[in-house]
Amino acid sequence: MKIKLSCTAFALALAALPLAATAAGDPFLKAQMIAENLEPVIVHPEQQKAVQEKLAALEKHSGRKPNILILLVDDLGWGDVGAYGGGTAVGAPTPHIDSLASGGLKLTSTYAQPTCTPTRSAMMTGRLPARTGLTRPILTGENPKVNPWASEQTAAGLLSAAGYRTALSGKWHLGEPDGFQPQQVGYDEYLGILSVSSEFSQGLDARLVPNLVLKPERMAALKKVSRSAITAGKRGELAQVLEPIDSIEALAQIDQKFANFSEDFIRRSVKAQKPFYLIHSFSRVHNDNYPAKGYAGKSPAGFPYKDAVVEVDDIVGRLMQTLKDTGQLDNTLVFFTSDNGPSDDLLPDSGYTPFRGGKGSTWEGGVRVPGIAYWPGMISAGRQSDGLFDLMDLFNTSLAVTGNSAKVPKDRYIDGIDQSSFLLSDQGVSNRESVYMYAERQLMAIRWEEFKVHLKVFDVKRAGANLDESLVSSTGMSPWVYNLYVDPKEQVSTGHRNFEWGLPRVVGIAGRHLATFQKYPAKDLGLAKPVQ
Amino acid sequence: MKIKLSCTAFALALAALPLAATAAGDPFLKAQMIAENLEPVIVHPEQQKAVQEKLAALEKHSGRKPNILILLVDDLGWGDVGAYGGGTAVGAPTPHIDSLASGGLKLTSTYAQPTCTPTRSAMMTGRLPARTGLTRPILTGENPKVNPWASEQTAAGLLSAAGYRTALSGKWHLGEPDGFQPQQVGYDEYLGILSVSSEFSQGLDARLVPNLVLKPERMAALKKVSRSAITAGKRGELAQVLEPIDSIEALAQIDQKFANFSEDFIRRSVKAQKPFYLIHSFSRVHNDNYPAKGYAGKSPAGFPYKDAVVEVDDIVGRLMQTLKDTGQLDNTLVFFTSDNGPSDDLLPDSGYTPFRGGKGSTWEGGVRVPGIAYWPGMISAGRQSDGLFDLMDLFNTSLAVTGNSAKVPKDRYIDGIDQSSFLLSDQGVSNRESVYMYAERQLMAIRWEEFKVHLKVFDVKRAGANLDESLVSSTGMSPWVYNLYVDPKEQVSTGHRNFEWGLPRVVGIAGRHLATFQKYPAKDLGLAKPVQ
Repeated sequence: MKIKLSCTAFALALAALPLAATAAGDPFLKAQMIAENLEPVIVHPEQQKAVQEKLAALEKHSGRKPNILILLVDDLGWGDVGAYGGGTAVGAPTPHIDSLASGGLKLTSTYAQPTCTPTRSAMMTGRLPARTGLTRPILTGENPKVNPWASEQTAAGLLSAAGYRTALSGKWHLGEPDGFQPQQVGYDEYLGILSVSSEFSQGLDARLVPNLVLKPERMAALKKVSRSAITAGKRGELAQVLEPIDSIEALAQIDQKFANFSEDFIRRSVKAQKPFYLIHSFSRVHNDNYPAKGYAGKSPAGFPYKDAVVEVDDIVGRLMQTLKDTGQLDNTLVFFTSDNGPSDDLLPDSGYTPFRGGKGSTWEGGVRVPGIAYWPGMISAGRQSDGLFDLMDLFNTSLAVTGNSAKVPKDRYIDGIDQSSFLLSDQGVSNRESVYMYAERQLMAIRWEEFKVHLKVFDVKRAGANLDESLVSSTGMSPWVYNLYVDPKEQVSTGHRNFEWGLPRVVGIAGRHLATFQKYPAKDLGLAKPVQ
Repeated sequence: MKIKLSCTAFALALAALPLAATAAGDPFLKAQMIAENLEPVIVHPEQQKAVQEKLAALEKHSGRKPNILILLVDDLGWGDVGAYGGGTAVGAPTPHIDSLASGGLKLTSTYAQPTCTPTRSAMMTGRLPARTGLTRPILTGENPKVNPWASEQTAAGLLSAAGYRTALSGKWHLGEPDGFQPQQVGYDEYLGILSVSSEFSQGLDARLVPNLVLKPERMAALKKVSRSAITAGKRGELAQVLEPIDSIEALAQIDQKFANFSEDFIRRSVKAQKPFYLIHSFSRVHNDNYPAKGYAGKSPAGFPYKDAVVEVDDIVGRLMQTLKDTGQLDNTLVFFTSDNGPSDDLLPDSGYTPFRGGKGSTWEGGVRVPGIAYWPGMISAGRQSDGLFDLMDLFNTSLAVTGNSAKVPKDRYIDGIDQSSFLLSDQGVSNRESVYMYAERQLMAIRWEEFKVHLKVFDVKRAGANLDESLVSSTGMSPWVYNLYVDPKEQVSTGHRNFEWGLPRVVGIAGRHLATFQKYPAKDLGLAKPVQ
């Protein structure tokens, strides 16, 4: 296997390591290549078989395919959730989310991409942003030269073709132009916002952004590039304005409206006796947070961020109640997560991670997110696992639990892995060997077993924790290595010390991974860059 | 009320604040003075009444007084426990401890003193170390000029006099000389170690401390000052050597022996139909950790520290099983905690806190510990509270739940508070207004509501996080203020900004607190100090 890493210093370090050990047959590496275009998988045949039988028995019993409900919060910190050490401790109890954790499987090593658009696109396509080109958030009024969606497949689209009703409720932020909208890329229904909270609040909040809101010329210009509205559309249509978001009060209510839509969508799907695939994508708790009616000061902490966490938790409870009311609790895989770590430079309008760094960085604080799988009868209550789970795995897993694994595309590289046997087996272990962490197109770090290996880091003196590949530095002759069990806060790199045995494996994994880009070239959307 | 703070700069800052607001009758301050020698209490009459009735009903039903079992781990980090965001996430699952949390009350703001001896003495006497003189760990072979125990009352002693069987199992570390030993200060039975793990391992581990172990002269000297043994004794006796700790293998087994003793003590007490008060005081997970038989590599992380966490969890499970087997589960208040934060300069033989700093500091990482109250039938499952709880409160609370509140001494100042109504009421809230954090005799910081106010901090350039009052600096004209809900990691002090309303209250509380030392002077044990 040819190993090519773009960083010279690291390539030099590589040459000093026992490379032979990274070849196929390395007894430390458990993943098997099951197809050229698929991420290698740790195969657990018995676990897989047991879960397939379990799924078949459920379908036989219920007489229908299972539903999938993905609860995706925006910028929620790992530590914001009570079950992860936050909740009451940080002034915003999360009893409904905690109930999912105690009643299901609490994953402690779930990984997102460092920012919004990359995570969401990866989760929906099973493909790394470095492949699809969606490597950074699409900005207000931006119209990329290349539309990635023209050649991508979403789980929603594949499931829609398989008889599912699919919907995206809430935040999209994967492109606003014609051809980029959710109901154009696989979702039968869409109601939400095409961009992001902060793009609305900046034009409304004269206290936060007086240099825009109080300047008529700039406001006039903003109105030309930004559609401040809840929009909605059905498959094939162009999204239409449903109602304007023309005040802070209107902005404060949008998550309630998304919840209304999700609830309605679930009820209609059940009534129509159709299985559904719903991504409920909160606008909360991305800045800027304004409490919805009745929520101001509802959290013990009192801050709008904390009130927003309480609102999110309430909405989770409400949607779970909807599943219960419609008799679908036992027939729905629920997955709760966040799209990246908290924006740690925005306190007090920001969440909490116990880990180093925050959103936009490839430190654990940026990419490690809550991950809870809940499915009464299929997932035993009280499970906890540190097995690796990448949110991209939701692509393959959603197809697998609905019996549509054969629909995983064969003409492109798929980075996601079917984790159904991990999630649904009582003693289930992860099928994923490693997680890759990127800054745009730069492979920054790899999680393997309990180790985090940084090949590159941000030049924090220049860039803070901001995601921009032009500010990336190599870690030099040896990667920075942290044992996350011993040093979860990534405080003291051990380098290769006591890791002589592991480092060559991680290097091997990096090489194997990077080689896939040769056979399956990455797309380039021609997104503007501040530094060329 | 006369306010006196020892730090000049802070006193100056004080003068600039609206001091009138700190007088009695301040509507922000909820605590009431109920006796001159008692810490003011937030009185909740209905909650108090309901719990007293509940306790009376239990005693009527069971026909005996309730037992108390305090599970005290050494140096365990807040984050080590699964229910607090660790466990599986940090490579050492804690299912038994997690069960106590999910089946009882998980407290998220429990506070210890920054080090071992201070916490233990405070917990046992209900008095701050600054009052008893036990302001720092007593060292190998040290014989303080003044014996604090000659004039202190322990909960164990008071309960023993009230018909309880009382025992200390495991680590003492509150003085080795005649007159300082547990069975001389209130415990009917003692089996354990009088000092601390690291004082044994230093004389045994040639890899860690070759400059002692491999030097015959130094080893001969060590043997004259240090008794390396499990010792035991009954009330009134001098403790005798039970078995030597003369090898790493012997040291590795001591927590199993403490568990044997605790189990036996519980069974004997129940058989004798006597209520018991037992402090099970782990030697684990203080450095240096060596895995007990069968525990090497038992944790997913594999490190001795992590194996020790797993062993602690197993022992918790075992003692809970003993309560179950003896029919005492419903008749025992169990409280699980740690004596201070993790020794964060000792990785990998150290635990995890998500907070700033570690053992020896008054940052949250040093003093915030897990705190779980468990009592089936008396404490509802699944409760969580961020109400303030100081481990000193276990003194008053233990007396209260056993019907011995009248025994709280009247001739000295008691810093502990009866928290029985907080712990045992379904909607219970804390009766404590504030927590005081000390470095030896220096009042460093105060927790009030969700705020942490540092009056002084360690000079970290000189001292790291080490507890030594000679290295303390004032925070200057304004205390450092952190909102722990927004900034649980104490990263960005807001100072008085947006806290103009609260700072005078905290200053008032500090003044009220410090004034108690005038009426009730502190003891001085004449402990040697590196800097006079």
